[in-house]
Amino acid sequence: MLIRPWKLIHSTYLHPNIRLDECELPTGQIITPHIIEYNDEIMVFALTQDRQVVLIRQYRHGLRDVILELPGGSVDAGESPLEAARRELMEETGYAGETFIALGQVSPNPAIYTNQLHIFLAVDVESSGRQSVYDVDGVEVVLMPLEDVISKARSSELINSLNITTLFFVLDYLHRIS
Amino acid sequence: MLIRPWKLIHSTYLHPNIRLDECELPTGQIITPHIIEYNDEIMVFALTQDRQVVLIRQYRHGLRDVILELPGGSVDAGESPLEAARRELMEETGYAGETFIALGQVSPNPAIYTNQLHIFLAVDVESSGRQSVYDVDGVEVVLMPLEDVISKARSSELINSLNITTLFFVLDYLHRIS
Repeated sequence: MLIRPWKLIHSTYLHPNIRLDECELPTGQIITPHIIEYNDEIMVFALTQDRQVVLIRQYRHGLRDVILELPGGSVDAGESPLEAARRELMEETGYAGETFIALGQVSPNPAIYTNQLHIFLAVDVESSGRQSVYDVDGVEVVLMPLEDVISKARSSELINSLNITTLFFVLDYLHRIS
Repeated sequence: MLIRPWKLIHSTYLHPNIRLDECELPTGQIITPHIIEYNDEIMVFALTQDRQVVLIRQYRHGLRDVILELPGGSVDAGESPLEAARRELMEETGYAGETFIALGQVSPNPAIYTNQLHIFLAVDVESSGRQSVYDVDGVEVVLMPLEDVISKARSSELINSLNITTLFFVLDYLHRIS
């Protein structure tokens, strides 16, 4: 079956990152979806030498709750996804490592988002001794064995879908190399 | 460490589902994050008796591309997540089944979204013979062996992060019952 794209008639901006499009469907119907335009993002699954995962606890305003998450963030202008992954891991946790493995990329939501998330596994990471630059905002670094992270994903305590997606890629990779 | 939530000072709406909040951080800094308020959503990993996965191909305006995805959608007012899962699977694919297993729930993005995604595995689904109600919009139903779906997730051909998250829950469940 030939699946035809929607025809974009007109775009306006509700906010710097939020676009409202007027589109014509193949049926002729006119709809006005909103579209989120973020920079690409990265997420890092960082493992210490004794297979502890480097996590953070922080307040998230969408859920209005303090939750456990993997480190991640936006790719800045002029930065590669790998550079962003190294920078965010250091900034959020104070951890660093030599070996970052690019495992894949996904769309956070293909209906709404224009950007992609780049997923990295960092192995043998070590604490630089530096505190997280976000300590003043209330970010706590938590080390947790890999098996406990899997349990928390299963029980929805690790609630961020992008974290679970990252865990899929990591477990698939670790399974293939083992 | 005590991690303090942000203090919500004032909310305005940019659009029916898009809120702009004025917030005070624990540091005293004022920021204005945008927040997406959708209904809860569901996603269905439907397996036929011969372990084919029921997928759809459709145009997604965020990516401006035709992509392969799992069926899913919003929970309507007055509907349970399970009812929404049965309805969306039928509407999008024409498939139905007796057994839907609730595997977990996640936040699509805890920083931005207020809602949750409820994940279901439907087993032994069968075609009702009805066409997808979206055929006129250009939605194609695709049956694919489970192993091929895993390969497409690994290679980023199954690009939707919420699909990969669903696959994590499904594989974890199938592994535990096998």
